[in-house]
Order: sequence, then C-alpha cells, then structure tokens
Amino acid sequence: MLTIAVDAMGGDNAPECVVEGTIQTLREAGNRLEVLLIGQEEKVQPLLDKHDTNGLKLRFMHAPEVITMNDVPAIAVKTKQHSSLVKGLVLCKEKKADGFVSAGNTGALMAASLFVLGRIPGVHRPAIAAYFPRLAPGLTNVVDVGANVDCKPEHLVQFAEMLTIYQRDAAGMEKPLTGLLNIGEEENKGPELLKQTYSLLQEADRKNKVNFIGNIEGNDILSSRASIIVCDGLVGNTLLKFGESIPEFLSSIFKPSLKELVVSGQLDPKAAELTANAFKAMFQPFDVEKFGGVPFLGVDGISIVGHGRSSAKAIMNMIFMAEHMIEKQVNQHITEALADN
Amino acid sequence: MLTIAVDAMGGDNAPECVVEGTIQTLREAGNRLEVLLIGQEEKVQPLLDKHDTNGLKLRFMHAPEVITMNDVPAIAVKTKQHSSLVKGLVLCKEKKADGFVSAGNTGALMAASLFVLGRIPGVHRPAIAAYFPRLAPGLTNVVDVGANVDCKPEHLVQFAEMLTIYQRDAAGMEKPLTGLLNIGEEENKGPELLKQTYSLLQEADRKNKVNFIGNIEGNDILSSRASIIVCDGLVGNTLLKFGESIPEFLSSIFKPSLKELVVSGQLDPKAAELTANAFKAMFQPFDVEKFGGVPFLGVDGISIVGHGRSSAKAIMNMIFMAEHMIEKQVNQHITEALADN
Repeated sequence: MLTIAVDAMGGDNAPECVVEGTIQTLREAGNRLEVLLIGQEEKVQPLLDKHDTNGLKLRFMHAPEVITMNDVPAIAVKTKQHSSLVKGLVLCKEKKADGFVSAGNTGALMAASLFVLGRIPGVHRPAIAAYFPRLAPGLTNVVDVGANVDCKPEHLVQFAEMLTIYQRDAAGMEKPLTGLLNIGEEENKGPELLKQTYSLLQEADRKNKVNFIGNIEGNDILSSRASIIVCDGLVGNTLLKFGESIPEFLSSIFKPSLKELVVSGQLDPKAAELTANAFKAMFQPFDVEKFGGVPFLGVDGISIVGHGRSSAKAIMNMIFMAEHMIEKQVNQHITEALADN
Repeated sequence: MLTIAVDAMGGDNAPECVVEGTIQTLREAGNRLEVLLIGQEEKVQPLLDKHDTNGLKLRFMHAPEVITMNDVPAIAVKTKQHSSLVKGLVLCKEKKADGFVSAGNTGALMAASLFVLGRIPGVHRPAIAAYFPRLAPGLTNVVDVGANVDCKPEHLVQFAEMLTIYQRDAAGMEKPLTGLLNIGEEENKGPELLKQTYSLLQEADRKNKVNFIGNIEGNDILSSRASIIVCDGLVGNTLLKFGESIPEFLSSIFKPSLKELVVSGQLDPKAAELTANAFKAMFQPFDVEKFGGVPFLGVDGISIVGHGRSSAKAIMNMIFMAEHMIEKQVNQHITEALADN
C-alpha cells in the first residue's frame, strides 16, 4: 500500500481544506492508500476531530513549524527543519512515504525538494510543467513555468524529454507533441537560445526522445497543436500568471453589464442566471482544480506542487496524482531515458 | 499641412479597407491633412473610382511591386524597392511625406524602416510597443513585442525611456509608470538580464527618465499597475499572441452553450442576443482597432505598424496616430532625451 505524505499547513485555505481533501480522498480510495498528514497538532487535531475517521488509513504527525508564503524559500528550508514541508520530504527520502503533496510556498517546496530529495541522476535542472487550457482530448503542459530562468538549450530539451515521459505514462498520451515557443515558426527565428534548442530538439526527435513539431507561437498555446510547450521559466511563468488573471478581468466587465441588463428590465433574472452559469462554465478549461497540482519533474522522488488557492477537491486530485505517478513509474522511466542519452 | 503616406497594399483586407479608411480619414480631417496613397494602380484606381474624392486632399502614387506576408523581410526590402512599403518610407526620408502607415508585413516594415529611415541618434534598438487591455484611464503598452530578441539591459531601459516620452506626449499621461516584467516582485528575482535591468531602471528613475515601480508579474499586466511594461521581445510577442487568441478561444466555448440554452427552450432568442452582445462588448479592451497600429519607436521618422487584420477604422486611427505623433514632436523629444544621457 502506498503512503502519501500531505502538508496540512500549505495553502491559503490550510489546514481546513487540506484536512477536508485528505478525508475525501481516503473515503474514495478505500484501503488502496494511506495518508500521513503533517502539521501543527493544535490546529489540525480539532479539525480531524470533527470528522469520523474510523476505518480510514489516516495517520497524523506533528510538525511545530510552518513555512508561510512570506518566507524566503532558501532560508526557510534551512531554518525551519521542523516544518511540515521539510518533514514531509524527509519522510520520502527515508522511504517512510512514497510521495509528498503541498499547496504551500512553491519556492520553498522546490528548494526543499532539491535539497532533500536531490535530482534524478542525469537531470540538469528539475522543472515545473503547468497545465494550460485545452479543448481537444489530452493535456497541454507548458514547461518551465518558473523553477528555472537563464535556461540553456540542453535544459529546455531535457524538460521536453521528461514531460514526454510524464504525458505518456501518467496521462496515457501515445505521442505527445513538443512545440518550441518562439516569435515565429521558421527554424532560424528568435533568440540564440531557441535556435540552438531547435537543433537539439531535432536530434532528440531522431532518437525518439521527443516528437518535435518545430516552433510554435503564442497564439498556438490554446490551439492543442502541441501538448508539450517548451520555454524558459520567465516566459512560462509570465504566461501562466497572465492567463490566470484573465477570468477575473473579463468577469469584471461582463457581470456588471449583465446586471445592467437586468436592472434596466431588458433581461429577466432567470435568463441572466442561466447566462452567468454558462459564462462561469466557460472558464472550466482554465480551472487548475481538476489537476490539483503539478509535479516537480526531475527530482528524485514524488513532489507535487499545488496552487495556493487549492480547495479540498484540488488536494484530493494532488494526492491521486502522486499515487498515479508512483504506480506508472514515471521517475523510473525518466531515469532510464536519461541513462540512455 | 502634413502629408501621411499610406501603404494601400498592406494587410489582409488591402487594398479595399485601406482605400476605405483613407477616404474616411480625409472626410473627417477636412483640409488638415493630405494622404498620399501608394499601391498598384490597376488594383487601387478602380476602388478610388467608386468614391467621390472631390475636394479631398488625396494623391495616388503607383508602386508596381507588393511585399506580401510570405516575403522574407530582409530579402524583400532589398529586392522589392518598387513596392508601396519601401516607396512610402523613401518618401519620408526625402521629406516628401511626414509619416508612413502600413498594415503589411511587420517584419518587412521594421527592416525597411531601419534601412531607409535609420535610427534616432543614440537609440540602440528601435522597439515596438503594443497596446494591452486596460480598464483604468490611460494606456498600457508592453515593449518590446517582437522587434528585438536577445536584448541587453541597456536596450530594455531605453525602451522604457522612449515609451515614457511617447505616453506623455502622444497620450497625455502625466506620469507613466514603468514595471519590469519578471517572475517575482523582489529586486533579486529572475534572470541575470532582469537583475541588471532593475538597477539601470532605478538609475533612470533617479534621472527622471522613467518612473520605475519595480518588478511586476504576469497577473499585473491587466491590472493597470504600470502603463509601461518592459520585457524582451520574446516574452512580449508571446504574451501578445496568447492574449489575441483568447477571445476566439472563449467564444468557441460560450457561444455553443448559449445556443444550446436557446435550442433547449431555456433561454429565449432575444435574451440570448442581448447576452451575446454583452459578451462581444466584453472583449472591447482587447480590440486593437481603436489604436489602429503601434509606432515603431526609435526610428528616425514616423512609421506606424498596423495589424494584418486592420479594418478601415483601424487604418483611419493609424493615420491619425501618425499625425498626432508628428504634432506632439515625439521623435524630437526622444532625440533630446537621449542626447541628455
């Protein structure tokens, strides 16, 4: 049976949502899974006491310290060794847990994952591959979205190689297509970094490490042309945050105009409600909840990073993502692929 | 009286929309402005013949060649000297026109502008500053959006300096605020390029060349925190194209669900129409038409780049933008500011 360690203190809605999500997960998973919830006893225990946890494979571990969103990652990881975040990763390192899930400080989770778990042999730099909206079947992941800046061509190529394995193993996509995000489609376009990356990706394609479709542009991101979109962390991070800001921006225009139509008697409230629901549903492809989190690819262990706003449902999906990655042996396959380079 | 040269052959809807837009402009401008329309006589003259151009300050000049969207910019500029695009810029250089407007091949227009007009003394690299959606009064420009990749810190700082003058002079913004687009707000965040740019922007702020508010992130782009958003052309170009793809992406989800509500009898057609109109209006801040085009800042002359999809209204706004930049002496002020460095 797998044991997933969960950071009870991570995220804007912690520990409430984390406790909630953990219990939902265990109810759904039955005896398949054990969760080791880590956090401040005085905050977590009262929440646990509200639920009937009888028969659930749930263990609790006290961690007196908390790494907050305001902590500087590199410092927090060293000074707060008794935090839930560091303790969870140490449990993975010691093989007392099979994976770790946290919706806390992303920078700290990255730093601690690297520090405690280390890298898979051969990995230059671990990377974070965020999910982007997609209407076609399958997934779209943009890599990297902020774990790495000043990337070198060989880093970008390795991101694509790792993500190809992830999408194939964990998402069952037979032939994930890789696009290199650039300012134009032609091979000789863009900055030096991308020109060099282009040739290396062609080479990786010849070795069947990736399926490279060439350069793609910003307007291709949502088009499902590629399922793996490769870029430096500066570009990916900016795109991710820009994209996340769009639903709120558009709602702040649409909702008042809908209300205005109701107030002026042109639209009846029932019709407005139906429309508002359709409008809300439109943003479902932007919803990160269904994935829960994103894996930190390339670290020697399973470390899942959740959004600060994670709900109970998101926590549940993060735990299942960790389970799935372990079962599908994503890290073993990355290790094998890199050894083969 | 100012003379603006207009590329009749540039854009997806050329020459029809360009002729239309030119005539609208002249009707609105009265005797204030002259337009010199340049293009293939056999295509443009029949269109002009359909309009009553009596009393309009309109001249036509034949240009046998056309630079298309498929032409390679650097080659086209040299081999198609008798194209409307090159001829228009040569007229500016020879002071026979005061500015040039084109919705044609952006790369070719940039290359030809640089080649024919040259740079304002002291300018490292001219840049394109695209308009981004904004709800607050004023403008948001992202610079650069594709004219420059592999930027150095001094390039990014100069983009901000030029755009500060542009927004002050041409848009009447008293104190345009500059933000450096990065992966985090802290000064020491991000790639080397941006760390160095950060200090140079602080220095430029002390000299009152820019008003620097520090690092901003992708989710700040639409927030109006900064009116000038500085980044390398790779980042800006990707953001611009990503942003432009969003209205269509969202419409492709919302419109069918609205239709479904009508077909299933839950929403009456009149209500659906009202809602669809509100939905369409929501994307107005994304509409590039109202600006028409963007100036190519730093070239020694007035060269306005339009979107390939430019309508007649966009062409009109581009011509007025050229006029406005000349009247407000934007280029003179850039020259003075750089001489002062």
